[in-house]
Amino acid sequence: MDSQFTVIAQENSKGLFDCPGYKFSATAVDIRDNQSGQLDLALIVGDAPLKSAAVFTQNDVTAAPVDLCKAVLKANPEKIGGIVINSGNANACTGKHGVADAQEMSASAQVTSNIGLPFYVCSTGRIGRRLPIDKISAGIDTCAKALKHCPTQSLQTAQAILTSDTCEKQATVTIQYQGKTFTLAGIAKGAGMIEPNMATMLAFIITDLDASHASLQKCLSKANAQTFNCISIDGDMSTNDTVILLANGKSGGSIDEDPILAQAFQEALTLISEILAKKIVSDGEKITKIVTLEIKGCSTFENAEKVARAIGNSLLVKTSFYGSDPNWGRIVDAAGYARVGLKLDQLNLHYNAVPALLSGIPQEQNADDWKAIAQNRSFTITLDLNQGDQSFKLITTDLSEAYVDFNKSE
Amino acid sequence: MDSQFTVIAQENSKGLFDCPGYKFSATAVDIRDNQSGQLDLALIVGDAPLKSAAVFTQNDVTAAPVDLCKAVLKANPEKIGGIVINSGNANACTGKHGVADAQEMSASAQVTSNIGLPFYVCSTGRIGRRLPIDKISAGIDTCAKALKHCPTQSLQTAQAILTSDTCEKQATVTIQYQGKTFTLAGIAKGAGMIEPNMATMLAFIITDLDASHASLQKCLSKANAQTFNCISIDGDMSTNDTVILLANGKSGGSIDEDPILAQAFQEALTLISEILAKKIVSDGEKITKIVTLEIKGCSTFENAEKVARAIGNSLLVKTSFYGSDPNWGRIVDAAGYARVGLKLDQLNLHYNAVPALLSGIPQEQNADDWKAIAQNRSFTITLDLNQGDQSFKLITTDLSEAYVDFNKSE
Repeated sequence: MDSQFTVIAQENSKGLFDCPGYKFSATAVDIRDNQSGQLDLALIVGDAPLKSAAVFTQNDVTAAPVDLCKAVLKANPEKIGGIVINSGNANACTGKHGVADAQEMSASAQVTSNIGLPFYVCSTGRIGRRLPIDKISAGIDTCAKALKHCPTQSLQTAQAILTSDTCEKQATVTIQYQGKTFTLAGIAKGAGMIEPNMATMLAFIITDLDASHASLQKCLSKANAQTFNCISIDGDMSTNDTVILLANGKSGGSIDEDPILAQAFQEALTLISEILAKKIVSDGEKITKIVTLEIKGCSTFENAEKVARAIGNSLLVKTSFYGSDPNWGRIVDAAGYARVGLKLDQLNLHYNAVPALLSGIPQEQNADDWKAIAQNRSFTITLDLNQGDQSFKLITTDLSEAYVDFNKSE
Repeated sequence: MDSQFTVIAQENSKGLFDCPGYKFSATAVDIRDNQSGQLDLALIVGDAPLKSAAVFTQNDVTAAPVDLCKAVLKANPEKIGGIVINSGNANACTGKHGVADAQEMSASAQVTSNIGLPFYVCSTGRIGRRLPIDKISAGIDTCAKALKHCPTQSLQTAQAILTSDTCEKQATVTIQYQGKTFTLAGIAKGAGMIEPNMATMLAFIITDLDASHASLQKCLSKANAQTFNCISIDGDMSTNDTVILLANGKSGGSIDEDPILAQAFQEALTLISEILAKKIVSDGEKITKIVTLEIKGCSTFENAEKVARAIGNSLLVKTSFYGSDPNWGRIVDAAGYARVGLKLDQLNLHYNAVPALLSGIPQEQNADDWKAIAQNRSFTITLDLNQGDQSFKLITTDLSEAYVDFNKSE
């Protein structure tokens, strides 16, 4: 038997539709109370009981649906009915009513979909307001009746979870192994309050492989650390960040029984997470630049991450990105206040492959080249501290006047 | 003898001029190379050898003049000639040339002013470019010849240290004690890269009292922790932050010999530092709001500070201030990602005296009142975690579209 596998990102993803054994539906119940007709409620269900894993925000303040998801995950992560999601209201800071509302969403989905298994609940939108639970319950009923495995419902589901995003975010990755095809399909939403641990976001990934909760959780945590947790738009970690991974085993493949397939799955899961994470950054609120920060040569991983986040979240760095100004002085300043004990005379800094600083000395002869690179929509800045072998990569954005205007009120 | 004292902030400060025993001068040497005629070089000198103290940025990356000041402070802090300051160029990330340039500035000031004692050197402006040292040396010569104790030179000195500030920042505080008057006078500059430890800034405070370096340093460190280190505009800590305190003893009073006078001096120094710090925040780059964050009820001081800085530096919080939107959800979210273990159901949040959250429950009946308060240019948000008795106060600002436009290139 051939023990080689191939992991392929599908160019024309149809999102969740690409994975067999799931049904979806979405509807508009006017959660925002603005009669826009915007899709704002969705169901994702399995044809059979689903195994699952999930990761959540590390904010001390967690929304009621996050608490509910954690309880579901703890109680029985291998017998899940599906996920019910609403946008337009985060159900965060809503007290006992919020807890009851999240429970009612889960129960409604369980009952109306005739599945009889627990549902995860995810909410995203404004903090501090009660859900319009009657509208939502009626909408869940509508969704339950409309559940289908079809491209239209799949696309509408990807749309219903969006808030300030400008487009839906879908991805599909397949594994070719021993003549068979295994599929991972996913959707995600951004686009503000984006700072890892988790990045402020929702993502749902489904697969037709089988795996225990323990295996799924291990793979998801690893993929998450390398992808969703390595993006930053505005440095604000949300109360609602959630990534859920569902597995139905419909393909007949099991990662628990085949270490090669497990390796392929980890690779595929990391790839699909990376694709979705990059789609979130690319659609960050009113951004005009995507900058990859490669921090190298650090004594510890934690130090590398601190330096990356200090730079990536610096207002002065972000505004200079916006202005296409290759202002390495602000980058070095931000790296310095991460306080990891860096030495200026050991620093190398590159824009793409062009050196701007070598051993802390400005390479002014390259200034025209940096300037040209900083004009691009997307480029990489590499900062080598020359103090060790640990590194961290953060994908971040600029900060535009339009971001400020967009967020000045909700 | 009367052991009471009075500490008074002078309403119409004439800045450094208000303190006897010092001379000042300023000139324009076109450090920015834009022929604007802007004052950009200044000298502050004592009529007699000065005792001194100083605090500096905690950034790992320190500018050459900061390193020089630290060496001067260490070598002989009780025999100082004065301070030479330039704006328009930070002399940071300038390697060995930068070190030599800072030394040349200090030596030029020492020689041309005929004082023969070491000078502190401070630079502020763009990072990563060499100083035009010939222009500066010639300018120091001009300044040395123009040194005077007069209001015009005092005002021009306050102007010459500015960068993106829109106005000079001067303050005078007097101590009335046993029929005598003792004076503290100071100047400062902001207005971007403002985040404590030190806040990104320069400040120079002079007094006619006498005190040992040790006493001055103790008082300055204490005042600094409660004032300059409690302001934040954009969260970016600079490479050049410096506060220098000079004492000439000309009044005949010594804080080392009189504990009551020492207490009065500490009070006066904290007051003048607070006045200058507030002037810096009020003149933050393109700000429209000044918000005082009072974080209370924390288990440790460090936790209170973490929560204050998470809120004060949150883009989403700052943009909502700009929009006059009393978005307490974003404030609670930011407090949550400070990760100090807060419990939502223990949180009280007030706009001025109006409760917005009590035990984590929104007080919607007060919404009109919060909205009215958030329209003001200046207001206070109090967040009580109800976990202990430690607190931290941070004075912060909003983030405007104009800030982004202003900083998008240098």
